[in-house]
Amino acid sequence: MCLAKELGERRIIEIIFSCLERMPNIPFPLGDDASAFNINHERVAVLTTDMLVGKTDVPPQMNFWQAARKAVVMNISDLAAKGVKPIGVLTAIGCPNDLTKKDIEQIGKGLNDGAREYGAYVIGGDTNEASDLIISCTAFGVCRKNLFMGRSGAKPGDLIATTGFFGKPMSGLKILLNNFSQPPEIGKALVDAVLMPYARVTEGLVLAKTRAVTASIDSSDGLAWSLHELSKASKVGFLIDTLPIAQEVKKFAEIHDLDPIELALYGGEEYELVITVKPKLWKKVEETMKHVGTQIKKIGLVTKKLDLIFETMEKPIYIEARGWEHFKTTLHQNTNVS
Amino acid sequence: MCLAKELGERRIIEIIFSCLERMPNIPFPLGDDASAFNINHERVAVLTTDMLVGKTDVPPQMNFWQAARKAVVMNISDLAAKGVKPIGVLTAIGCPNDLTKKDIEQIGKGLNDGAREYGAYVIGGDTNEASDLIISCTAFGVCRKNLFMGRSGAKPGDLIATTGFFGKPMSGLKILLNNFSQPPEIGKALVDAVLMPYARVTEGLVLAKTRAVTASIDSSDGLAWSLHELSKASKVGFLIDTLPIAQEVKKFAEIHDLDPIELALYGGEEYELVITVKPKLWKKVEETMKHVGTQIKKIGLVTKKLDLIFETMEKPIYIEARGWEHFKTTLHQNTNVS
Repeated sequence: MCLAKELGERRIIEIIFSCLERMPNIPFPLGDDASAFNINHERVAVLTTDMLVGKTDVPPQMNFWQAARKAVVMNISDLAAKGVKPIGVLTAIGCPNDLTKKDIEQIGKGLNDGAREYGAYVIGGDTNEASDLIISCTAFGVCRKNLFMGRSGAKPGDLIATTGFFGKPMSGLKILLNNFSQPPEIGKALVDAVLMPYARVTEGLVLAKTRAVTASIDSSDGLAWSLHELSKASKVGFLIDTLPIAQEVKKFAEIHDLDPIELALYGGEEYELVITVKPKLWKKVEETMKHVGTQIKKIGLVTKKLDLIFETMEKPIYIEARGWEHFKTTLHQNTNVS
Repeated sequence: MCLAKELGERRIIEIIFSCLERMPNIPFPLGDDASAFNINHERVAVLTTDMLVGKTDVPPQMNFWQAARKAVVMNISDLAAKGVKPIGVLTAIGCPNDLTKKDIEQIGKGLNDGAREYGAYVIGGDTNEASDLIISCTAFGVCRKNLFMGRSGAKPGDLIATTGFFGKPMSGLKILLNNFSQPPEIGKALVDAVLMPYARVTEGLVLAKTRAVTASIDSSDGLAWSLHELSKASKVGFLIDTLPIAQEVKKFAEIHDLDPIELALYGGEEYELVITVKPKLWKKVEETMKHVGTQIKKIGLVTKKLDLIFETMEKPIYIEARGWEHFKTTLHQNTNVS
């Protein structure tokens, strides 16, 4: 008998998807970061749902305000990756019995602040008693159908790029959960990356308007996992030549004798965008991103061959399909926010 | 220090709502059964979210297919009460580790079948590890703004009516959870009312089109609670002259020496619509409902005085603001679906 813990989250999603009849005329296929339905022949409403669970998503040092804000931000990040401006958020909360009134106020404020930070509002919700703290959000927005950035349009020859650098949350979690010492100059940045994630909404919106992006995803399950998802959806491979490792992560890895490549590729809980770009429009993308104050990093090429390879000076490394999912056990064993 | 278990779900919702900034130009106020946003000046998208938690919402005799179907139906019922046709459902699932592949398939099928039953589709979702079985759904649809049936339009002199009879789920739960014997002729109907709830989608849609309904709510927290919610939102009272008690409930109460009024008023987990109607248009409502094969029951009058009173032959009974919330402890203590 195969149990949930052996199946893993992705296989569970596949099993559930296999039971679902498909909506006719659905604007984009099931299994993208967000779902959509037509509101007229030009525009679609885009919705996404993502559940924060105390015992797997909330380290003990994260307060209720931060946890609720994160629950909103991780949903808004999925809209950002699709180039959709968030309008509103609905939230269903599972409350452990021992939450105090102050905790609940912190949750309310965190939900509000997470949404307002990106111009959205929390417009409804529901609450129930539950054993774990559960904050399940649904974020939605509206966009022009032809500006929606799906996962499946990457073509061989396209460039692959990211909106930032990787590895900070995984390093931060090692400080928060595994008692790695916090180096004075870089420690705060690493811990903050876990406690205060940011969604790339502005970047997603301007990127969509360039019409240069052929596929897009956020990196909430880690850079490696995002690349594998894009690869699967677009039926292409990737040849990565530059791994966008954060400076702080390089230092942290040096101090603690860790592999910075591991930290940057197989982390998760980070909300950069990973996009593929038509090479002729790369300059336009670069300029647009400069205009909003974000440096876009070209990290490699889309290939016809389905392999995902990181070319290093020594030997090529095959990028494995693993990431945050695998990591959850650690958080589970260490967290004390129920 | 005030804890969640003492506050109760409704107070928790109030606390969270008090933390939320209000969306400008929101078509309908926060706190209705569903939320909405304008998609153009005529139409609104309507969304609702509701979370099913194994330990409080799933009696041990309910299988995973039924639990997942119920999670969808309880969301669709909220749209039905607003007169909105469901288009799609998103679902975030918290999976206990010991769920089997077969359980997960049953959940997938239950989600699909619950949506398809009402013409909707499940178009996206997310899954996580959790201690309880959690099925958090968001259902949505689109409607003309002027056909949305809110809670706040009831006027003194309006009639109050329901789409059906009450008390079956509470009686069924007494059989399922409290070892009350199951009377041969009526037992199945009572138990089925718990395991296979139905949403009044067709009724909601045709009622909205009559333009006769001034306020509407479903009865998922019990008839008494629904009346109190309408009373609060519309700032009116109710004088109930006929309590719509199901025949099976009257018999069940007689056999087990229970109060049928208690069963009908203070139950919950039932999905009838409770509506107020302009008296001049009552005939139209009756005919419309007859046309879709549903008997509408006139149960009383909307009053200026804020009291909620059930007039009996003997003495008037004040209808208390309690219902399903209070009841949950029982289910909690008896259920074995985690």
